[in-house]
Amino acid sequence: MADNFPPVNLPKRLLMGPGPSEVDPRVYRAMIQPVVSLLDPAFVPILDQLHELLRYAFRTQNAITFPISGTGSAGMEAALVNLLEPGDTAAVIVGGVFAARMCEIVERCGGKLIRIDVPWKAAPDPDQIRKAVGGKKVKVLAAVHSETSTGVCQPLEPLRAIAQECDALLVVDAVSSLGGLPLETDLWKLDVCYSGSQKCLACPPGLAPITVSERAAQVISQRRRPVQSWYLDLGMIQQYWGKERRYHHTPPVNMLFGFHEALRLLREEGIEAAWARHKQSHMALVQGVEALGLKMFVEDPAARAWTVNTIRIPAGVDDARIRTSLLNRFGIDIAGGLDKLKGQIWRIGLMGLTATPSSVLLMLSALESVLADQGFSLDRGAGVAAAEKALQAPAQ
Amino acid sequence: MADNFPPVNLPKRLLMGPGPSEVDPRVYRAMIQPVVSLLDPAFVPILDQLHELLRYAFRTQNAITFPISGTGSAGMEAALVNLLEPGDTAAVIVGGVFAARMCEIVERCGGKLIRIDVPWKAAPDPDQIRKAVGGKKVKVLAAVHSETSTGVCQPLEPLRAIAQECDALLVVDAVSSLGGLPLETDLWKLDVCYSGSQKCLACPPGLAPITVSERAAQVISQRRRPVQSWYLDLGMIQQYWGKERRYHHTPPVNMLFGFHEALRLLREEGIEAAWARHKQSHMALVQGVEALGLKMFVEDPAARAWTVNTIRIPAGVDDARIRTSLLNRFGIDIAGGLDKLKGQIWRIGLMGLTATPSSVLLMLSALESVLADQGFSLDRGAGVAAAEKALQAPAQ
Repeated sequence: MADNFPPVNLPKRLLMGPGPSEVDPRVYRAMIQPVVSLLDPAFVPILDQLHELLRYAFRTQNAITFPISGTGSAGMEAALVNLLEPGDTAAVIVGGVFAARMCEIVERCGGKLIRIDVPWKAAPDPDQIRKAVGGKKVKVLAAVHSETSTGVCQPLEPLRAIAQECDALLVVDAVSSLGGLPLETDLWKLDVCYSGSQKCLACPPGLAPITVSERAAQVISQRRRPVQSWYLDLGMIQQYWGKERRYHHTPPVNMLFGFHEALRLLREEGIEAAWARHKQSHMALVQGVEALGLKMFVEDPAARAWTVNTIRIPAGVDDARIRTSLLNRFGIDIAGGLDKLKGQIWRIGLMGLTATPSSVLLMLSALESVLADQGFSLDRGAGVAAAEKALQAPAQ
Repeated sequence: MADNFPPVNLPKRLLMGPGPSEVDPRVYRAMIQPVVSLLDPAFVPILDQLHELLRYAFRTQNAITFPISGTGSAGMEAALVNLLEPGDTAAVIVGGVFAARMCEIVERCGGKLIRIDVPWKAAPDPDQIRKAVGGKKVKVLAAVHSETSTGVCQPLEPLRAIAQECDALLVVDAVSSLGGLPLETDLWKLDVCYSGSQKCLACPPGLAPITVSERAAQVISQRRRPVQSWYLDLGMIQQYWGKERRYHHTPPVNMLFGFHEALRLLREEGIEAAWARHKQSHMALVQGVEALGLKMFVEDPAARAWTVNTIRIPAGVDDARIRTSLLNRFGIDIAGGLDKLKGQIWRIGLMGLTATPSSVLLMLSALESVLADQGFSLDRGAGVAAAEKALQAPAQ
């Protein structure tokens, strides 16, 4: 029996995939404070602090701002099921796998879907979006800020204008951007924005922070029928997180302890400094990758997410063998492409505690080594040298 | 800034409420193994082991048996949204708050609800249930095994017969029973059974184990329309837990580490031994409580859940003051009543690692002390003496 079920003992990885990311030991230490009851008077101040710390991360004053008891996809589902009622129209800008998931959820809500397919490797053209929704009654306009499947960063400000033109609520997936890419919930008037704990916020997976504008909260409170999900009913959950402290469900208390510490770390660093660190790591990786003779999948530098870096797999190089070598020889975890990008790209995450000069240099050295093993012709040492140079430039 | 957001530092509690329960240090240690990617080849065997360990706890061979990435209520929602389509009839036996929650979810699925209200303090009469569903086309018959709001244990075997008579799928909420009260998924032919990680399984909250019979799995696979929840779509989640290893969402990896260890502990102890320990703790507490001159809320001893022990608050005793004193003077956390039982009962959990002789003795000593403080007349020492005697009887 003991042999069949040994304790969990995993090798240490360097998490450079599209999430989860590396986690500070302080977060783990916080997670193992003995669990307490969800209404313990000593625990309640932690809830208030989480509220405030999340508002800091989202750059918002929204009252409804808390972590949902589920992973990032639960955040996506919560955003859509709370806003949509059967027959409502939602327009989704689809430039990758995660936006496509939004479409599936819209349909499961009985919503009418306007699917706006845009290129998977460039920022979408606002005019295409404007045209697709023009003259239509649209309740929700939804977009993914940093598309984790492609590495494209979608500028959000142009969407604000389009949403206003068609009087839609703007829903933003910030799963792989919150804490790593500039995101201004209030300034950009995002109506609902959600993320995951395990990417740029550098906490293990298990929580989906969400924030809801006053306007969106009003729409939710005026629904004709209850939200189809009881578990993700934001109005009910708010009664626990708000002053009422009314029991809804038992949250994952220890994950909240860890998330509190991860957000404390973010606040200690300062969110602008965290953005700059993500940018610097990204720029250095790009310099290094290009110096090795590889190409970024997203051609326009301005359209690249700093967080999920996508690299074209060069012809003649075996995708799976490279990733296996990185894992087995160096303990480095990266990911391949999803869906139609399978076999075409690698996805290298520089998020949370992974977004450091050390990760970048190690990644480039290891990549050089495994590519050389496969006979890929490259200028040895050029990747690290180029990255080092970029790292010495002052962070912006 | 630092002052407003100090690190989480909570006093140590003894968790004797209706969950979360005490957790073994081994579980916490497992939880802080550094996170890995959800498809890391070193992690995949852990998923297989979790499958097997959960089958052991549920006493089943069901293929679909895994923890859902949410808390117990997510398990409830998953059970119902996967089985029900709009217009389907579900009969729910309602003897407390958690069964009432099932009704709400049935309605949010567009299901037709047959609500069978039964007394809140006794096991329901099978004839009443038979009569309520008799001659009707019922797709789902749903019941709560151990009603966490009342302390009543609902015998499941009579329900099996009734479900068969009306050809319904039998759905069982085992949130506060799995691992603490005898539960036989296969023997009793339960179709869907779910629980929470934080009660008798002695893990922190954050996971909802669920198991689905072959018959129920077939019903799910033959749905006319997709499950209304993408996040809780059991067929899709099974593609990650099953051989396909297809990415659905990022599970709470560290919670899975901890849950694996909690289930290893259960298996080391043996599930029958765990049941006996819960029973013995319960019997000792009841003896002690009655020796103090208090009364159990559930009068029939056979109808009492061993896990959630409900005690009538005696006349003239201040509910909140007693609970506050227990917490402040002894660090003991218990709960009051929910809904219409507010102010009428205390709920004392003896679940997971809380179900020990030490917890029982300390609870009785502390309760005696705080009751005496309020002028409640009792025979000092009688509670502990009666409990000790019960604890010395051989465990059954």
